[in-house]
Amino acid sequence: MLDAPKSAARRLLVERELDAFSQTCQRLLSARGEANSAAHAAIALRQYGQLSEPAQLRFFEHLEEDFGPNPKHVLAAAQHYAATPTAQALMQLTSAAEPPRQELLRRLNRAPGGTAVIVQMRRQLLRLLPAHPQLAAVEADFFHLLSSWFNPGFLEMQQVDWNSAAQLLEKIIQHEAVHAIDGWDDLRRRLQPDRRCFAFFHPQLPGEPLIFVEVALVPTMPDAIAPLLAKTTPPAGPKAYKVATFYSISNCQPGLRGVSLGNFLIKRVAERLCLEFPSIRTFCTLSPMPGFVRWLNEVDVCAPDLKAVQKKLRAARATLDLDSVRTKQSAAFWKPETALSEESAAWLALASIYLRVVSSTAAGDAVAKFHLGNGARLQRINWAADLSPNGVRQSRGMMVNYLYDLSKVEEYHERFLEGHVVHAQAVARLV
Amino acid sequence: MLDAPKSAARRLLVERELDAFSQTCQRLLSARGEANSAAHAAIALRQYGQLSEPAQLRFFEHLEEDFGPNPKHVLAAAQHYAATPTAQALMQLTSAAEPPRQELLRRLNRAPGGTAVIVQMRRQLLRLLPAHPQLAAVEADFFHLLSSWFNPGFLEMQQVDWNSAAQLLEKIIQHEAVHAIDGWDDLRRRLQPDRRCFAFFHPQLPGEPLIFVEVALVPTMPDAIAPLLAKTTPPAGPKAYKVATFYSISNCQPGLRGVSLGNFLIKRVAERLCLEFPSIRTFCTLSPMPGFVRWLNEVDVCAPDLKAVQKKLRAARATLDLDSVRTKQSAAFWKPETALSEESAAWLALASIYLRVVSSTAAGDAVAKFHLGNGARLQRINWAADLSPNGVRQSRGMMVNYLYDLSKVEEYHERFLEGHVVHAQAVARLV
Amino acid sequence: MLDAPKSAARRLLVERELDAFSQTCQRLLSARGEANSAAHAAIALRQYGQLSEPAQLRFFEHLEEDFGPNPKHVLAAAQHYAATPTAQALMQLTSAAEPPRQELLRRLNRAPGGTAVIVQMRRQLLRLLPAHPQLAAVEADFFHLLSSWFNPGFLEMQQVDWNSAAQLLEKIIQHEAVHAIDGWDDLRRRLQPDRRCFAFFHPQLPGEPLIFVEVALVPTMPDAIAPLLAKTTPPAGPKAYKVATFYSISNCQPGLRGVSLGNFLIKRVAERLCLEFPSIRTFCTLSPMPGFVRWLNEVDVCAPDLKAVQKKLRAARATLDLDSVRTKQSAAFWKPETALSEESAAWLALASIYLRVVSSTAAGDAVAKFHLGNGARLQRINWAADLSPNGVRQSRGMMVNYLYDLSKVEEYHERFLEGHVVHAQAVARLV
Amino acid sequence: MLDAPKSAARRLLVERELDAFSQTCQRLLSARGEANSAAHAAIALRQYGQLSEPAQLRFFEHLEEDFGPNPKHVLAAAQHYAATPTAQALMQLTSAAEPPRQELLRRLNRAPGGTAVIVQMRRQLLRLLPAHPQLAAVEADFFHLLSSWFNPGFLEMQQVDWNSAAQLLEKIIQHEAVHAIDGWDDLRRRLQPDRRCFAFFHPQLPGEPLIFVEVALVPTMPDAIAPLLAKTTPPAGPKAYKVATFYSISNCQPGLRGVSLGNFLIKRVAERLCLEFPSIRTFCTLSPMPGFVRWLNEVDVCAPDLKAVQKKLRAARATLDLDSVRTKQSAAFWKPETALSEESAAWLALASIYLRVVSSTAAGDAVAKFHLGNGARLQRINWAADLSPNGVRQSRGMMVNYLYDLSKVEEYHERFLEGHVVHAQAVARLV
Repeated sequence: MLDAPKSAARRLLVERELDAFSQTCQRLLSARGEANSAAHAAIALRQYGQLSEPAQLRFFEHLEEDFGPNPKHVLAAAQHYAATPTAQALMQLTSAAEPPRQELLRRLNRAPGGTAVIVQMRRQLLRLLPAHPQLAAVEADFFHLLSSWFNPGFLEMQQVDWNSAAQLLEKIIQHEAVHAIDGWDDLRRRLQPDRRCFAFFHPQLPGEPLIFVEVALVPTMPDAIAPLLAKTTPPAGPKAYKVATFYSISNCQPGLRGVSLGNFLIKRVAERLCLEFPSIRTFCTLSPMPGFVRWLNEVDVCAPDLKAVQKKLRAARATLDLDSVRTKQSAAFWKPETALSEESAAWLALASIYLRVVSSTAAGDAVAKFHLGNGARLQRINWAADLSPNGVRQSRGMMVNYLYDLSKVEEYHERFLEGHVVHAQAVARLV
Repeated sequence: MLDAPKSAARRLLVERELDAFSQTCQRLLSARGEANSAAHAAIALRQYGQLSEPAQLRFFEHLEEDFGPNPKHVLAAAQHYAATPTAQALMQLTSAAEPPRQELLRRLNRAPGGTAVIVQMRRQLLRLLPAHPQLAAVEADFFHLLSSWFNPGFLEMQQVDWNSAAQLLEKIIQHEAVHAIDGWDDLRRRLQPDRRCFAFFHPQLPGEPLIFVEVALVPTMPDAIAPLLAKTTPPAGPKAYKVATFYSISNCQPGLRGVSLGNFLIKRVAERLCLEFPSIRTFCTLSPMPGFVRWLNEVDVCAPDLKAVQKKLRAARATLDLDSVRTKQSAAFWKPETALSEESAAWLALASIYLRVVSSTAAGDAVAKFHLGNGARLQRINWAADLSPNGVRQSRGMMVNYLYDLSKVEEYHERFLEGHVVHAQAVARLV
Repeated sequence: MLDAPKSAARRLLVERELDAFSQTCQRLLSARGEANSAAHAAIALRQYGQLSEPAQLRFFEHLEEDFGPNPKHVLAAAQHYAATPTAQALMQLTSAAEPPRQELLRRLNRAPGGTAVIVQMRRQLLRLLPAHPQLAAVEADFFHLLSSWFNPGFLEMQQVDWNSAAQLLEKIIQHEAVHAIDGWDDLRRRLQPDRRCFAFFHPQLPGEPLIFVEVALVPTMPDAIAPLLAKTTPPAGPKAYKVATFYSISNCQPGLRGVSLGNFLIKRVAERLCLEFPSIRTFCTLSPMPGFVRWLNEVDVCAPDLKAVQKKLRAARATLDLDSVRTKQSAAFWKPETALSEESAAWLALASIYLRVVSSTAAGDAVAKFHLGNGARLQRINWAADLSPNGVRQSRGMMVNYLYDLSKVEEYHERFLEGHVVHAQAVARLV
Repeated sequence: MLDAPKSAARRLLVERELDAFSQTCQRLLSARGEANSAAHAAIALRQYGQLSEPAQLRFFEHLEEDFGPNPKHVLAAAQHYAATPTAQALMQLTSAAEPPRQELLRRLNRAPGGTAVIVQMRRQLLRLLPAHPQLAAVEADFFHLLSSWFNPGFLEMQQVDWNSAAQLLEKIIQHEAVHAIDGWDDLRRRLQPDRRCFAFFHPQLPGEPLIFVEVALVPTMPDAIAPLLAKTTPPAGPKAYKVATFYSISNCQPGLRGVSLGNFLIKRVAERLCLEFPSIRTFCTLSPMPGFVRWLNEVDVCAPDLKAVQKKLRAARATLDLDSVRTKQSAAFWKPETALSEESAAWLALASIYLRVVSSTAAGDAVAKFHLGNGARLQRINWAADLSPNGVRQSRGMMVNYLYDLSKVEEYHERFLEGHVVHAQAVARLV
């Protein structure tokens, strides 16, 4: 009972805080503001930057409440268009249906630095979304515009190497999400001639990588991550480059979540390496399987497929069964490199089932879904490939090679859309 | 009767020609094509480049017929949204109302060079529009996307000077639309330190100016164009820079017609010059009045305002009246510099009426509408200011100074929207 | 009698004018000046820039009189070194023998823009030298330092094309010394993909070409200049590039006369084109023979070689003999393209004698000496190859192909040093 | 006795190893080699790069023995010039006196990368010099040419900051000689806006800093180094910049030892900071006194000046006298921050004597000689200013401010040449 007035008072404070910014936004959208919109946009960006979190939330709520299309107008326009589908009617409809907040965002973008702020806005909005689902349509508008602006046609791919600015390299260290970079010496090894790093940049976010991929140029398709990351391995010469392995891909901009970048980056890197090294014939990944153990913990172990494998696991090692895997203790003591061969075979069989059967469902592995959705093929599952604590905990130390055959990606992509996971025979034989 | 089969045969040929391109477009929009969309986009761009004009027209017609929103679906979505205005309903509506051709254009833009081709497409579409008004909604979609992509936040302003690439300077010579550049020596004078040229560029159209403005840095607000253009005037030193005069602004990309660029360019140039030369306090134009004589030829000379002036003109020179102005012969023989002072006063009065009264109507002068719409103020009308054949024919040799007072542009812009032309007292006193 | 005082007065004025500059130079060389030498050098450069021509001459005389080595000191050091040739004695000798003006020039070079001024100084000095031969040793010091500083290791070769700065292209137009460039359109043709232009630059003279060479990439060794220069020839595609023809080479800096640049430029261009177009197998020139007619006018026509050819010429055309060639009138009326075949054969024979026999003597053709000295081979003489007034007047319309065989240039260069002109058999057979 | 044949055999091997390189050098200097000298130079550079150390030494000996001037020829030329001092005679003398190895080095420099190799050669030569003093004249020739080529007029000053290439920053970390940089985080602090780093580069050694200076922009002349180096100090804003303090200057190229760079760099940095921050009025250093304790250990403690100070030291602390300072043990236990005020006064008095009296002698402090020789003034000696082990061991923890008053450097430089150390009164009063 006592809380309500407090909350109303707080809300009032928030509205007051938001006041100046709201007025600038109104002005920016008004006919009068048009004369000087770049200047107003610059002011708005500064004001937004000083808002508290509650005020930011309130701003998004305003966008939802006050900057959406008018249902009545849209309905009238849709009826008119359905009755007389002329160009004029369509243009009226399109105009009536577009949420005015899209125009607001386009106008905010008129000031220098506008794009960066809009990306930050969406980052914040995505954080708030789970607790405020009514903002979904607002988020959809941000996504729509950012997808258009971060179209791969507008992006520049650059190689990142030891000659790049320290400022950029520092961001690479910070954003590497798959195999953490342990300081500058580690980074340095990853930028030697037989390791490559490529990133996408947008002209409006200079010096800010959007996404980057790390590639190892090696003689054969690798079956373990440690040799690729070892700081002291001497760089191999170009003659040994036969296989380009994408071993890490990291997004740097949470505000661009869902905007398609990785697929385009991988393919553009492959094209470039093709031109630079005609000796490279194979493009593949060495990827984690981050959802494997979680899936095992949630799956119904009595499913027919799994039951058989479970039996084998029991046969291999009396004390081990799927249930024990679920306890943290066993995971801590268990080491892939000491596993019996029967046992590893059983684990590989489980992984094969996980990747082949589950990938095309909602429960599938995020990494698998990404590469298979890009049109890659499931080529090999490697035992004892990532012995880092993380690798053992999430994937029981296994890693996966996905193969990118550029002449087939489209066909495989389509088959994946239809629910089939294209895979090498050897992967099926693991079961 | 005979024509119909011929025309059908021709149409068949055109459809055949369009066939491969249409299929690529379908693929590009399909789920399957998603895997390799940048590659498909590149193919589509190449195919479009080889289409004949009739096939291009047919392509635009396809966009109109087959890539618009479905009226029934939109109506259903609009009804649903009107009934239950939830985020989900809105997202469905937005998605249903957006013409699929917008997504097609966004995907074409995924290939390198896509933006340039889309600008070319719109150029062609604008040519075809008068004869094919049903394409208006298609054109609106192009305009919508290009406005978003050529947002001033994405544009880079660069100074063009004698150190710029010859390739760029050649384009400046070619596109100067107001005071033609007579070869490289003429251009060279216009790029000396007391003349400036600034252009907008887009990252996706490197080396391609979108719009450029030429500025003269002079001691006082100029009243004639010839001294600004004279090839042999020695450049003045920075101490003499008090007034920055925009004396020419030219668009280079017909495919971007209507996309707001000039307003932003003028203001960004003004800001930059302000910083570079604190001595510059005045920003103005020296502009033509291209619609003046045409308006005179069409106007009702018995309107009260005009009648009085006409009388004065008659008094000034027995043989001259408004009607005679309308004959080409008189224009050919007539020279502003030999006009009697009473006569020039009468002409200036007519110009004053034209600019103050007509500018806010549809019949108004295009240049006046541009600057007044930007928030400039009508400052002065100059007699015998442009004695070139073109200047005499279109404007009776008069030119106009519009003043940009950056602290007032918004207020003036708004008053212009309300139908008022803000002007100096002296302009009103001309009548 | 009256002149002497006048001249003394004038000299006094000149000395006074020189006064401040001389003092700065003294200070610059002094121990005290060392602390701030870059600042003093900057002052000195400014002061030199304001000197009148007589004062410049006087400055060079000062350099000769007051900044040479002391004969007594050098003699003592040389005697000491001859008696006890130790490192110390040698260092004393080297130090005593070096003219102090070299150190002065090195210190002038410490200020920004110093190199450019020193190049200008030598240019002026070279102009004065014929009338002031006592300045030869001063000039030798300039030459010595500039040769060291404009060492090809310090030069950067850049391609000049239509994307280069207008400022640079203007200099190319202005300095082309062989086949004048007739404005920007002409230049434009010469920068199309099948024509190349390369220039040397020095880091201290940014934007200032030192020397440039124009190259035509053509299917066969060309026998006439007109097709190479024709503005309207459409550019050929890369498949047709078999022969790289250097058709013009021009120095831009008179102050660098005698500093070896052309030889290095030609070879570096050849290396680069080799890499870029493996299809190019032949590197040759199409060169004028600027000294031919002048030589004919001065030569003893009764020399046995010439007599035989002269006879042929007479037989070919009754009215023509070597003497008539010497009269300007005949040259004016005479046209290579209407010559009888016997007559052209006789002219070619004369040219063959001129190039093969005379080139290794002081009277030889400057262009021939340049290419033969670079190690090129005399490959072909072409009739009616340059029908421009200049071409007819200097070379009777003939032009020469010199062949650069990179694997042989050293051998041929040595044979040329020994007095032999390496040539194709066909050239010898012309006689 | 047995060693001689062994040594002869070894020498033979070395000569053989040197053989190909020697021949290339001969060829490069020969008339024949002139045609293709850049190519020969490139070969020579490669061959030199593969020489063993003994072969390098032998090469320098060859340069000494076979590439010096001919004593007889020089003597004849010197006699001729002394008798008839004409331009011709002088030119012959200059030519005879110049060691041919200078021309050899200039020709080696014609190939790409030549300058870098010649710098490496001198580095090696300087290492060998102490044991092979007869190479002094060869070394003098290297020094002479490198001084001419690394003239400040040819150098480019660049700011090094966090946007610089990691490759360059790594070299900065590695070469910092005064206050070691402890990894990338330490470096990062030193590149924040209130810390600056500037380096000289040569166009022929791209990416290779020659020398760099680190500057702190602070409110007052600093009296201790720790606050300047502290990694966690937040950067101050530009308003606080009153004093620019050069706190570290490091050479990166041992092969350029003795080539004057530091003086020019400090002055160019001062000019640049003057322009960028008009608020900065004072330019000073915070410098170590690296020779102080060594000098104390070697000095005659009975000199009158020192005796008085010594007495004070004894009075201050019974157990301490100059002799005890000389024992390492005392140094280890002794800490400047715990010294009594009488004691610190005595130490400061000793430092004052050391800097004011000894600096102008051969025994003077290298850092003091550098700054005083540049025309700086001895401004202040700071107690407990550098408490690092190195600082305590070498300078008893004291540091010195030298003041650069650009309007006085020349005068002070001259007074220093005359033996006077210009100093603030306060420094003298310390005694």
